[in-house]
Amino acid sequence: MSTTENTEPTARRRGRRPAGQDTRTALIDAARAVFAETGYDGATVRAIATRAGVDAAMVNHWFGSKEGLFAQAVLELPFDPMELQKALRQGPDDELAERIVRTFVTRWDTAGGGQFVALIRSITGHEQAGHVLRDFFQRFFSAVITSIGADRTALRMNLCATQMVGLGMVRYVAKFEPLATEEVEVLVRAIAPNLQRYLTGEIG
Amino acid sequence: MSTTENTEPTARRRGRRPAGQDTRTALIDAARAVFAETGYDGATVRAIATRAGVDAAMVNHWFGSKEGLFAQAVLELPFDPMELQKALRQGPDDELAERIVRTFVTRWDTAGGGQFVALIRSITGHEQAGHVLRDFFQRFFSAVITSIGADRTALRMNLCATQMVGLGMVRYVAKFEPLATEEVEVLVRAIAPNLQRYLTGEIG
Repeated sequence: MSTTENTEPTARRRGRRPAGQDTRTALIDAARAVFAETGYDGATVRAIATRAGVDAAMVNHWFGSKEGLFAQAVLELPFDPMELQKALRQGPDDELAERIVRTFVTRWDTAGGGQFVALIRSITGHEQAGHVLRDFFQRFFSAVITSIGADRTALRMNLCATQMVGLGMVRYVAKFEPLATEEVEVLVRAIAPNLQRYLTGEIG
Repeated sequence: MSTTENTEPTARRRGRRPAGQDTRTALIDAARAVFAETGYDGATVRAIATRAGVDAAMVNHWFGSKEGLFAQAVLELPFDPMELQKALRQGPDDELAERIVRTFVTRWDTAGGGQFVALIRSITGHEQAGHVLRDFFQRFFSAVITSIGADRTALRMNLCATQMVGLGMVRYVAKFEPLATEEVEVLVRAIAPNLQRYLTGEIG
Protein backbone atom coordinates (compact mmCIF):
# COMPACT_ATOMS: atom_id res chain seq x y z
CA MET A 1 0.00 0.00 0.00
CA SER A 2 1.02 3.63 0.03
CA THR A 3 1.15 6.83 2.03
CA THR A 4 -2.39 7.66 0.94
CA GLU A 5 -3.69 4.87 3.12
CA ASN A 6 -4.61 7.12 6.02
CA THR A 7 -6.89 9.27 3.91
CA GLU A 8 -8.77 6.26 2.56
CA PRO A 9 -9.96 4.25 5.51
CA THR A 10 -12.26 1.93 3.53
CA ALA A 11 -10.18 1.32 0.42
CA ARG A 12 -8.49 -1.68 2.00
CA ARG A 13 -11.70 -3.70 1.94
CA ARG A 14 -11.28 -4.08 -1.79
CA GLY A 15 -7.66 -5.16 -1.60
CA ARG A 16 -4.53 -3.44 -2.81
CA ARG A 17 -5.92 -1.28 -5.57
CA PRO A 18 -7.06 1.25 -6.64
CA ALA A 19 -5.61 3.74 -4.19
CA GLY A 20 -5.22 7.52 -4.09
CA GLN A 21 -5.34 9.19 -7.47
CA ASP A 22 -6.13 5.80 -9.01
CA THR A 23 -9.36 5.73 -7.04
CA ARG A 24 -10.22 9.22 -8.12
CA THR A 25 -9.52 8.45 -11.78
CA ALA A 26 -11.47 5.18 -11.63
CA LEU A 27 -14.46 7.00 -10.15
CA ILE A 28 -14.38 9.67 -12.84
CA ASP A 29 -14.25 7.06 -15.60
CA ALA A 30 -17.07 5.06 -14.01
CA ALA A 31 -19.15 8.20 -13.44
CA ARG A 32 -18.89 9.24 -17.09
CA ALA A 33 -20.13 5.83 -18.17
CA VAL A 34 -22.97 5.60 -15.65
CA PHE A 35 -24.21 9.19 -16.13
CA ALA A 36 -24.20 8.69 -19.89
CA GLU A 37 -26.15 5.44 -19.59
CA THR A 38 -28.75 6.42 -17.02
CA GLY A 39 -28.80 10.23 -16.84
CA TYR A 40 -28.20 12.26 -13.74
CA ASP A 41 -31.21 11.19 -11.69
CA GLY A 42 -30.87 7.50 -12.57
CA ALA A 43 -27.24 7.30 -11.58
CA THR A 44 -26.53 6.20 -8.00
CA VAL A 45 -23.36 6.63 -6.02
CA ARG A 46 -23.45 2.90 -5.34
CA ALA A 47 -23.61 1.99 -9.04
CA ILE A 48 -20.72 4.30 -9.86
CA ALA A 49 -18.58 2.99 -7.00
CA THR A 50 -19.32 -0.63 -7.96
CA ARG A 51 -18.34 0.07 -11.56
CA ALA A 52 -15.10 1.65 -10.33
CA GLY A 53 -14.42 -1.27 -7.99
CA VAL A 54 -14.19 0.92 -4.90
CA ASP A 55 -16.25 1.56 -1.80
CA ALA A 56 -19.11 4.07 -2.11
CA ALA A 57 -17.55 6.14 0.70
CA MET A 58 -14.79 7.06 -1.75
CA VAL A 59 -17.25 9.27 -3.66
CA ASN A 60 -17.78 11.47 -0.61
CA HIS A 61 -14.11 11.36 0.21
CA TRP A 62 -12.95 12.57 -3.21
CA PHE A 63 -15.91 14.58 -4.52
CA GLY A 64 -18.08 15.46 -1.53
CA SER A 65 -21.27 14.25 -3.18
CA LYS A 66 -22.84 12.85 -6.33
CA GLU A 67 -23.17 16.48 -7.55
CA GLY A 68 -19.49 17.08 -6.96
CA LEU A 69 -18.52 13.93 -8.85
CA PHE A 70 -20.83 14.88 -11.69
CA ALA A 71 -19.42 18.40 -11.84
CA GLN A 72 -15.88 17.11 -12.24
CA ALA A 73 -16.48 13.97 -14.30
CA VAL A 74 -19.04 15.25 -16.78
CA LEU A 75 -19.07 19.03 -16.63
CA GLU A 76 -15.33 19.18 -15.91
CA LEU A 77 -15.90 22.12 -13.58
CA PRO A 78 -12.89 23.01 -11.46
CA PHE A 79 -14.97 23.28 -8.29
CA ASP A 80 -17.72 21.63 -6.28
CA PRO A 81 -21.01 23.26 -7.30
CA MET A 82 -22.82 22.60 -4.04
CA GLU A 83 -20.04 24.15 -2.00
CA LEU A 84 -20.14 27.08 -4.42
CA GLN A 85 -23.89 27.42 -4.01
CA LYS A 86 -23.60 27.68 -0.27
CA ALA A 87 -20.91 30.34 -0.57
CA LEU A 88 -23.00 32.34 -3.03
CA ARG A 89 -26.01 32.40 -0.76
CA GLN A 90 -24.07 34.14 2.02
CA GLY A 91 -24.64 37.89 1.64
CA PRO A 92 -27.38 40.35 0.62
CA ASP A 93 -29.85 39.04 -1.98
CA ASP A 94 -29.51 42.17 -4.10
CA GLU A 95 -25.77 41.49 -4.48
CA LEU A 96 -26.20 37.82 -5.35
CA ALA A 97 -25.49 38.39 -9.05
CA GLU A 98 -22.25 40.19 -8.23
CA ARG A 99 -21.11 37.22 -6.17
CA ILE A 100 -22.07 34.79 -8.95
CA VAL A 101 -20.24 36.68 -11.70
CA ARG A 102 -17.18 37.32 -9.53
CA THR A 103 -16.94 33.75 -8.27
CA PHE A 104 -17.53 31.99 -11.58
CA VAL A 105 -15.15 34.18 -13.56
CA THR A 106 -12.44 33.96 -10.91
CA ARG A 107 -12.66 30.15 -10.78
CA TRP A 108 -12.91 29.73 -14.54
CA ASP A 109 -9.94 32.08 -14.99
CA THR A 110 -7.90 30.06 -12.48
CA ALA A 111 -8.57 26.93 -14.51
CA GLY A 112 -7.44 28.74 -17.67
CA GLY A 113 -10.79 28.34 -19.37
CA GLY A 114 -9.89 24.85 -20.59
CA GLN A 115 -12.73 23.15 -18.76
CA PHE A 116 -15.20 25.55 -20.28
CA VAL A 117 -14.05 24.66 -23.78
CA ALA A 118 -14.32 20.95 -22.95
CA LEU A 119 -17.79 21.50 -21.53
CA ILE A 120 -19.01 23.25 -24.66
CA ARG A 121 -17.50 20.56 -26.86
CA SER A 122 -19.27 17.88 -24.85
CA ILE A 123 -22.60 19.69 -25.13
CA THR A 124 -22.38 20.20 -28.87
CA GLY A 125 -21.18 16.67 -29.46
CA HIS A 126 -23.66 14.69 -27.36
CA GLU A 127 -27.38 15.11 -26.87
CA GLN A 128 -27.10 13.47 -23.45
CA ALA A 129 -24.61 16.04 -22.21
CA GLY A 130 -27.14 18.78 -22.97
CA HIS A 131 -29.74 17.13 -20.75
CA VAL A 132 -27.24 16.56 -18.03
CA LEU A 133 -26.07 20.18 -18.09
CA ARG A 134 -29.68 21.38 -18.01
CA ASP A 135 -30.45 19.22 -14.97
CA PHE A 136 -27.39 20.57 -13.27
CA PHE A 137 -28.08 24.24 -14.01
CA GLN A 138 -31.70 23.73 -12.97
CA ARG A 139 -30.61 22.25 -9.69
CA PHE A 140 -27.97 24.88 -9.06
CA PHE A 141 -29.85 28.06 -9.97
CA SER A 142 -33.23 26.83 -8.76
CA ALA A 143 -31.90 26.43 -5.27
CA VAL A 144 -30.45 29.95 -5.41
CA ILE A 145 -33.58 31.53 -6.91
CA THR A 146 -36.05 29.70 -4.71
CA SER A 147 -34.13 30.84 -1.66
CA ILE A 148 -34.82 34.48 -2.56
CA GLY A 149 -38.50 33.87 -3.28
CA ALA A 150 -38.70 34.90 -6.96
CA ASP A 151 -41.51 33.65 -9.22
CA ARG A 152 -41.06 31.82 -12.56
CA THR A 153 -38.03 29.97 -11.27
CA ALA A 154 -37.54 27.74 -14.32
CA LEU A 155 -37.49 30.59 -16.84
CA ARG A 156 -35.26 32.72 -14.59
CA MET A 157 -32.85 29.81 -14.31
CA ASN A 158 -32.75 29.49 -18.10
CA LEU A 159 -32.15 33.24 -18.49
CA CYS A 160 -29.28 33.11 -15.99
CA ALA A 161 -27.83 30.26 -18.02
CA THR A 162 -27.94 32.33 -21.24
CA GLN A 163 -25.85 35.02 -19.57
CA MET A 164 -23.33 32.77 -17.85
CA VAL A 165 -22.86 30.34 -20.76
CA GLY A 166 -22.55 33.27 -23.16
CA LEU A 167 -19.99 34.94 -20.90
CA GLY A 168 -17.92 31.75 -20.86
CA MET A 169 -18.19 31.35 -24.63
CA VAL A 170 -17.03 34.89 -25.35
CA ARG A 171 -14.25 35.02 -22.72
CA TYR A 172 -12.77 31.51 -23.12
CA VAL A 173 -13.89 29.99 -26.41
CA ALA A 174 -14.31 32.76 -28.98
CA LYS A 175 -11.99 35.07 -26.98
CA PHE A 176 -13.41 38.42 -28.01
CA GLU A 177 -11.31 41.44 -27.04
CA PRO A 178 -11.43 43.42 -24.81
CA LEU A 179 -13.70 41.09 -22.81
CA ALA A 180 -11.35 38.08 -22.91
CA THR A 181 -8.62 39.95 -21.01
CA GLU A 182 -10.77 42.39 -19.03
CA GLU A 183 -10.36 42.63 -15.23
CA VAL A 184 -12.84 40.54 -13.26
CA GLU A 185 -14.31 43.59 -11.50
CA VAL A 186 -15.01 45.34 -14.80
CA LEU A 187 -17.05 42.30 -15.82
CA VAL A 188 -18.81 42.24 -12.46
CA ARG A 189 -19.92 45.88 -12.86
CA ALA A 190 -20.98 45.36 -16.47
CA ILE A 191 -22.75 42.00 -16.18
CA ALA A 192 -24.03 41.61 -12.60
CA PRO A 193 -26.94 44.09 -12.97
CA ASN A 194 -28.24 42.08 -15.93
CA LEU A 195 -27.91 38.78 -14.09
CA GLN A 196 -29.58 40.32 -11.02
CA ARG A 197 -32.58 41.28 -13.17
CA TYR A 198 -32.89 37.68 -14.32
CA LEU A 199 -32.71 36.52 -10.70
CA THR A 200 -35.11 38.94 -9.02
CA GLY A 201 -36.28 41.65 -11.44
CA GLU A 202 -39.32 42.15 -13.66
CA ILE A 203 -38.93 39.82 -16.66
CA GLY A 204 -42.18 40.60 -18.52
CA MET B 1 -25.22 25.57 -70.78
CA SER B 2 -28.41 25.74 -68.82
CA THR B 3 -31.51 27.74 -67.99
CA THR B 4 -29.61 29.61 -65.32
CA GLU B 5 -27.63 31.43 -68.00
CA ASN B 6 -29.76 34.59 -67.86
CA THR B 7 -29.06 35.13 -64.20
CA GLU B 8 -25.31 34.89 -64.67
CA PRO B 9 -24.24 37.32 -67.37
CA THR B 10 -20.51 36.97 -66.78
CA ALA B 11 -20.20 33.28 -66.11
CA ARG B 12 -19.76 32.51 -69.79
CA ARG B 13 -16.36 34.18 -69.83
CA ARG B 14 -14.99 31.19 -67.97
CA GLY B 15 -16.54 28.61 -70.27
CA ARG B 16 -19.23 26.06 -69.61
CA ARG B 17 -18.90 25.62 -65.90
CA PRO B 18 -19.70 26.18 -63.07
CA ALA B 19 -23.24 27.52 -63.48
CA GLY B 20 -26.15 28.22 -61.14
CA GLN B 21 -26.02 26.33 -57.86
CA ASP B 22 -22.62 24.95 -58.90
CA THR B 23 -21.27 28.49 -58.86
CA ARG B 24 -22.76 29.14 -55.45
CA THR B 25 -21.33 25.90 -54.04
CA ALA B 26 -17.91 26.54 -55.58
CA LEU B 27 -17.84 30.01 -54.03
CA ILE B 28 -18.76 28.70 -50.59
CA ASP B 29 -16.03 26.04 -50.76
CA ALA B 30 -13.48 28.58 -51.96
CA ALA B 31 -14.54 31.11 -49.33
CA ARG B 32 -14.10 28.61 -46.50
CA ALA B 33 -10.58 27.86 -47.69
CA VAL B 34 -9.56 31.49 -48.24
CA PHE B 35 -11.08 32.83 -45.00
CA ALA B 36 -9.36 30.04 -43.07
CA GLU B 37 -6.01 30.81 -44.69
CA THR B 38 -5.99 34.59 -44.54
CA GLY B 39 -8.67 35.64 -42.02
CA TYR B 40 -11.58 37.91 -42.77
CA ASP B 41 -9.68 41.11 -43.55
CA GLY B 42 -7.04 39.41 -45.65
CA ALA B 43 -9.53 37.62 -47.86
CA THR B 44 -10.50 39.42 -51.06
CA VAL B 45 -13.53 38.80 -53.25
CA ARG B 46 -11.15 38.45 -56.18
CA ALA B 47 -9.08 35.74 -54.48
CA ILE B 48 -12.17 33.77 -53.56
CA ALA B 49 -13.65 34.04 -57.05
CA THR B 50 -10.35 33.02 -58.64
CA ARG B 51 -10.13 29.98 -56.37
CA ALA B 52 -13.70 29.06 -57.33
CA GLY B 53 -12.95 29.56 -61.03
CA VAL B 54 -15.72 32.12 -61.52
CA ASP B 55 -15.99 35.85 -62.15
CA ALA B 56 -15.81 38.13 -59.09
CA ALA B 57 -19.24 39.55 -60.00
CA MET B 58 -20.73 36.19 -59.00
CA VAL B 59 -20.01 36.99 -55.33
CA ASN B 60 -22.30 40.01 -55.46
CA HIS B 61 -24.82 38.11 -57.52
CA TRP B 62 -25.15 35.21 -55.10
CA PHE B 63 -24.23 36.74 -51.73
CA GLY B 64 -24.58 40.51 -52.03
CA SER B 65 -21.13 41.18 -50.59
CA LYS B 66 -18.04 39.67 -49.01
CA GLU B 67 -19.88 39.89 -45.66
CA GLY B 68 -22.82 37.97 -47.05
CA LEU B 69 -20.57 35.26 -48.44
CA PHE B 70 -18.74 35.03 -45.14
CA ALA B 71 -22.00 34.79 -43.20
CA GLN B 72 -23.17 31.85 -45.24
CA ALA B 73 -19.90 30.07 -45.91
CA VAL B 74 -18.25 30.32 -42.51
CA LEU B 75 -20.88 31.33 -39.98
CA GLU B 76 -23.61 29.37 -41.79
CA LEU B 77 -26.10 32.08 -40.92
CA PRO B 78 -29.42 31.77 -42.75
CA PHE B 79 -29.47 35.46 -43.66
CA ASP B 80 -27.36 38.30 -44.95
CA PRO B 81 -25.99 40.17 -41.92
CA MET B 82 -25.62 43.55 -43.65
CA GLU B 83 -29.21 43.49 -44.83
CA LEU B 84 -30.19 42.53 -41.30
CA GLN B 85 -28.19 45.40 -39.85
CA LYS B 86 -29.97 47.91 -42.05
CA ALA B 87 -33.36 46.53 -41.02
CA LEU B 88 -32.43 46.69 -37.34
CA ARG B 89 -31.42 50.33 -37.53
CA GLN B 90 -34.88 51.40 -38.68
CA GLY B 91 -36.90 52.40 -35.60
CA PRO B 92 -36.39 54.09 -32.21
CA ASP B 93 -32.95 53.60 -30.64
CA ASP B 94 -34.47 52.62 -27.31
CA GLU B 95 -36.26 49.69 -28.96
CA LEU B 96 -33.19 48.50 -30.84
CA ALA B 97 -32.61 45.56 -28.49
CA GLU B 98 -36.20 44.38 -28.95
CA ARG B 99 -35.71 44.36 -32.71
CA ILE B 100 -32.43 42.48 -32.39
CA VAL B 101 -33.80 39.75 -30.10
CA ARG B 102 -37.02 39.39 -32.11
CA THR B 103 -35.25 39.27 -35.47
CA PHE B 104 -32.44 36.91 -34.49
CA VAL B 105 -34.67 34.44 -32.66
CA THR B 106 -37.26 34.44 -35.45
CA ARG B 107 -34.63 33.76 -38.10
CA TRP B 108 -32.76 31.18 -36.04
CA ASP B 109 -36.06 29.44 -35.26
CA THR B 110 -36.94 29.36 -38.95
CA ALA B 111 -33.65 27.64 -39.65
CA GLY B 112 -34.39 25.09 -36.91
CA GLY B 113 -31.33 26.04 -34.91
CA GLY B 114 -29.11 23.74 -36.98
CA GLN B 115 -26.87 26.54 -38.20
CA PHE B 116 -26.32 27.68 -34.66
CA VAL B 117 -25.12 24.24 -33.61
CA ALA B 118 -22.79 24.13 -36.61
CA LEU B 119 -21.50 27.57 -35.75
CA ILE B 120 -20.69 26.61 -32.16
CA ARG B 121 -19.00 23.42 -33.32
CA SER B 122 -16.84 25.38 -35.72
CA ILE B 123 -15.85 27.85 -32.99
CA THR B 124 -14.91 25.17 -30.48
CA GLY B 125 -13.07 23.12 -33.09
CA HIS B 126 -10.96 25.79 -34.77
CA GLU B 127 -9.06 28.72 -33.35
CA GLN B 128 -9.41 30.58 -36.66
CA ALA B 129 -13.21 30.39 -36.57
CA GLY B 130 -13.16 32.20 -33.23
CA HIS B 131 -11.22 35.10 -34.75
CA VAL B 132 -13.48 35.20 -37.73
CA LEU B 133 -16.62 35.24 -35.61
CA ARG B 134 -15.19 38.01 -33.45
CA ASP B 135 -14.37 40.13 -36.49
CA PHE B 136 -17.89 39.61 -37.74
CA PHE B 137 -19.62 40.45 -34.46
CA GLN B 138 -17.36 43.45 -34.06
CA ARG B 139 -18.30 44.71 -37.49
CA PHE B 140 -21.99 43.99 -37.03
CA PHE B 141 -22.57 45.36 -33.54
CA SER B 142 -20.03 48.19 -33.84
CA ALA B 143 -21.97 49.67 -36.73
CA VAL B 144 -25.19 49.44 -34.74
CA ILE B 145 -23.69 50.84 -31.53
CA THR B 146 -21.71 53.62 -33.20
CA SER B 147 -24.87 54.75 -34.95
CA ILE B 148 -26.52 55.45 -31.59
CA GLY B 149 -23.49 57.25 -30.19
CA ALA B 150 -22.67 55.02 -27.19
CA ASP B 151 -19.19 55.00 -25.63
CA ARG B 152 -16.96 51.93 -25.07
CA THR B 153 -18.14 50.36 -28.30
CA ALA B 154 -15.81 47.35 -28.22
CA LEU B 155 -16.78 46.24 -24.72
CA ARG B 156 -20.48 46.83 -25.42
CA MET B 157 -20.21 44.70 -28.55
CA ASN B 158 -18.60 41.91 -26.52
CA LEU B 159 -21.33 42.13 -23.89
CA CYS B 160 -24.04 41.93 -26.57
CA ALA B 161 -22.28 38.86 -27.90
CA THR B 162 -22.37 37.17 -24.47
CA GLN B 163 -26.15 37.58 -24.37
CA MET B 164 -26.90 36.56 -27.95
CA VAL B 165 -24.46 33.63 -28.08
CA GLY B 166 -25.72 32.43 -24.69
CA LEU B 167 -29.31 32.70 -25.86
CA GLY B 168 -28.54 30.58 -28.89
CA MET B 169 -26.64 28.03 -26.80
CA VAL B 170 -29.49 27.58 -24.33
CA ARG B 171 -32.34 27.59 -26.88
CA TYR B 172 -30.77 25.49 -29.66
CA VAL B 173 -27.79 23.56 -28.33
CA ALA B 174 -28.41 22.69 -24.66
CA LYS B 175 -32.20 23.10 -25.12
CA PHE B 176 -33.14 24.15 -21.63
CA GLU B 177 -36.88 24.14 -20.89
CA PRO B 178 -38.98 26.25 -20.81
CA LEU B 179 -36.73 28.62 -22.78
CA ALA B 180 -36.16 26.26 -25.72
CA THR B 181 -39.87 26.22 -26.60
CA GLU B 182 -40.91 29.63 -25.25
CA GLU B 183 -42.77 32.08 -27.53
CA VAL B 184 -40.53 34.63 -29.24
CA GLU B 185 -42.30 37.59 -27.62
CA VAL B 186 -41.78 36.16 -24.14
CA LEU B 187 -38.06 36.07 -24.88
CA VAL B 188 -38.16 39.61 -26.27
CA ARG B 189 -39.75 40.93 -23.04
CA ALA B 190 -37.35 38.98 -20.85
CA ILE B 191 -34.08 39.56 -22.69
CA ALA B 192 -34.35 42.84 -24.65
CA PRO B 193 -34.03 45.13 -21.56
CA ASN B 194 -30.74 43.42 -20.71
CA LEU B 195 -29.43 43.71 -24.26
CA GLN B 196 -30.55 47.36 -24.39
CA ARG B 197 -28.48 48.08 -21.28
CA TYR B 198 -25.42 46.63 -23.00
CA LEU B 199 -26.12 48.77 -26.07
CA THR B 200 -26.86 52.14 -24.47
CA GLY B 201 -27.03 51.88 -20.65
CA GLU B 202 -24.60 52.45 -17.81
CA ILE B 203 -22.13 49.55 -17.82
CA GLY B 204 -19.90 50.59 -14.91
